[in-house]
Amino acid sequence: MKAVRYYGPGDIRVDDIPEPVTGDKQVKIKVAWNGICGSDLHTYFVLPTHGPTLTTPHPTTHETLPVVMGHEFSGTIVELGKAVDSDKFSVGQNVVVEPIISCGQCGPCLSGIKNLCHQITFIGIGGWGGGLAEYTVANEDLVHVLPDNIPLEVGALIEPLAVVWHALKISHFKPGSSVLIIGAGPIGLLLLKVLKGEDASWIGVSEPAAIRRETALKLDASVVFDSLSHDVPAETYRLTNGGADVVFDCAGIQASLDTALGAVRTQGNVVVISLFEKKPVIDMRVLQNKEAILTSSLTYNRRHAEVLKAVSEGRIPGLEELITRKIGLDDFVEKGIKALIAEKDKQIKILVHP
Amino acid sequence: MKAVRYYGPGDIRVDDIPEPVTGDKQVKIKVAWNGICGSDLHTYFVLPTHGPTLTTPHPTTHETLPVVMGHEFSGTIVELGKAVDSDKFSVGQNVVVEPIISCGQCGPCLSGIKNLCHQITFIGIGGWGGGLAEYTVANEDLVHVLPDNIPLEVGALIEPLAVVWHALKISHFKPGSSVLIIGAGPIGLLLLKVLKGEDASWIGVSEPAAIRRETALKLDASVVFDSLSHDVPAETYRLTNGGADVVFDCAGIQASLDTALGAVRTQGNVVVISLFEKKPVIDMRVLQNKEAILTSSLTYNRRHAEVLKAVSEGRIPGLEELITRKIGLDDFVEKGIKALIAEKDKQIKILVHP
Repeated sequence: MKAVRYYGPGDIRVDDIPEPVTGDKQVKIKVAWNGICGSDLHTYFVLPTHGPTLTTPHPTTHETLPVVMGHEFSGTIVELGKAVDSDKFSVGQNVVVEPIISCGQCGPCLSGIKNLCHQITFIGIGGWGGGLAEYTVANEDLVHVLPDNIPLEVGALIEPLAVVWHALKISHFKPGSSVLIIGAGPIGLLLLKVLKGEDASWIGVSEPAAIRRETALKLDASVVFDSLSHDVPAETYRLTNGGADVVFDCAGIQASLDTALGAVRTQGNVVVISLFEKKPVIDMRVLQNKEAILTSSLTYNRRHAEVLKAVSEGRIPGLEELITRKIGLDDFVEKGIKALIAEKDKQIKILVHP
Repeated sequence: MKAVRYYGPGDIRVDDIPEPVTGDKQVKIKVAWNGICGSDLHTYFVLPTHGPTLTTPHPTTHETLPVVMGHEFSGTIVELGKAVDSDKFSVGQNVVVEPIISCGQCGPCLSGIKNLCHQITFIGIGGWGGGLAEYTVANEDLVHVLPDNIPLEVGALIEPLAVVWHALKISHFKPGSSVLIIGAGPIGLLLLKVLKGEDASWIGVSEPAAIRRETALKLDASVVFDSLSHDVPAETYRLTNGGADVVFDCAGIQASLDTALGAVRTQGNVVVISLFEKKPVIDMRVLQNKEAILTSSLTYNRRHAEVLKAVSEGRIPGLEELITRKIGLDDFVEKGIKALIAEKDKQIKILVHP
């Protein structure tokens, strides 16, 4: 079968490899759609933090590069392994996969906090075979049945939606809160989508790229700010009468942290979702003068079922609007990765059909 | 009367000034004891953030320098102004004063969060006449009666105790939590005292000065670490089986923030009490890999009554142990401020008797 495999920065190949064998308590999935994530883009330039190298296996998967990429995928079950729960799974079902691979032995794992596992990795990054292949197999405990009213394309968005959902659920947000989203990339826009169903009283979006601001307006943001020309903290303060209750940093740079601390209300909450490539300076005086609360979220922990329920119930409608391109496996680098670099503002979510 | 007045960095004088006049709804207090605070020390070198200058009045008090210093004081009521609540106050009562001066008009003030007032200042810093004088007057709403079983010396510690109490009460601490205190200055040691009555399961103290570590051990810390030679995060991790539930940063420097983030448990709480003079770099990856929660506290808001109750009930015994020297008003700079600089390790709290 064809599979996109990661060998290292700048070296991503479409290889012909054997179909995976379905083990006990595993299901074999014919992949329908796999979304390209910002982290995939990142690994085109540098080795992923949570992955193996060509010579050093990952401590949890014991695999070395190359690995089959892709961790945001949907598909259809084509085979059940031995001892799979047949009350839950059957051939022909559409499914999505929660791609966290955790060690099961560290403190966080033993407390059930698998997203903070000390040896965490992900399907498609640390091994096990991701969604950028015709077929993959997955442990049944990571597989979630896609409700009939959710198309497979939208199924490929469940994983990034789980990131956003988790960040929201561990934040101080409550219905009626005012929210500022900094950065209108895929995560920021998905968060905007989710917040529309969660009764935010006001949603501001700060973003330097004009096309993305337009998208945020189309998705019904209360107001959009050009972060390059607006005094976002002052505008937020004025429009919310004292600052946003919750600010989500979906950009992960010095300027976004500064804006977040400036725009948050007294005793409000700044939530860092984005990964910071560089360690930022924090203006502790601003934090203290507001007794603000800085929290962060990392991926998700058992959120897929909640997200699937919310989408199925129509609480996050119109997710298809965020899919800006669909491509084949062979085009992954040229029309996928490189398009996300060259047409960064225009592309939101690119799906790959293996 | 004699009063210690602040004219600016390096310029603190003992002046002879008229006794203050007791206004409506004010009480006149003969000051018994006034503690020297780290912030007093700080103003010996630089102008305070929340104070006026010789030419620019503070926006809330409309006073310029010089101001009578001192904000940690106890004393005895010698006169009641007109319209003072005579059910509550009488001449001869021992009292302490909550020294926050807030504007009453900004968002936080209107929400009752006076410690986060946008124009905050303090008695003894921004004006109104502090406790480093024979007499002072205070608005009755800032005055708290000292219970009979609390000596006046201990009364002078109620203000810094309120700082610690507030930080603890807005933290994620709960009975049974493990706690690391970074920095065993007066605030760190007062926190240790308070925690002993709050059922912490483990209290580690990290401090570079040997004398202060000894004091922390005498005050019954579970373990003390020399921050210069111990790997405090690793030791804390080992002794608490995964990190401290709550870490209090009572040092306010880059190294203390790094240690706090390293030593806190997954999903634990780092509380910044100290003021940072320089903006630190924050390792956001460590914060995120733990989904740790960074909070901060600034002074206190209506905590004096709770603290007085706790001390009166014997829940914070032996506070006298933290008083290392008692001096007169004339010795404020030489035996007070300069001693805190030169004998930093030996002195904890110096009280001044005007």
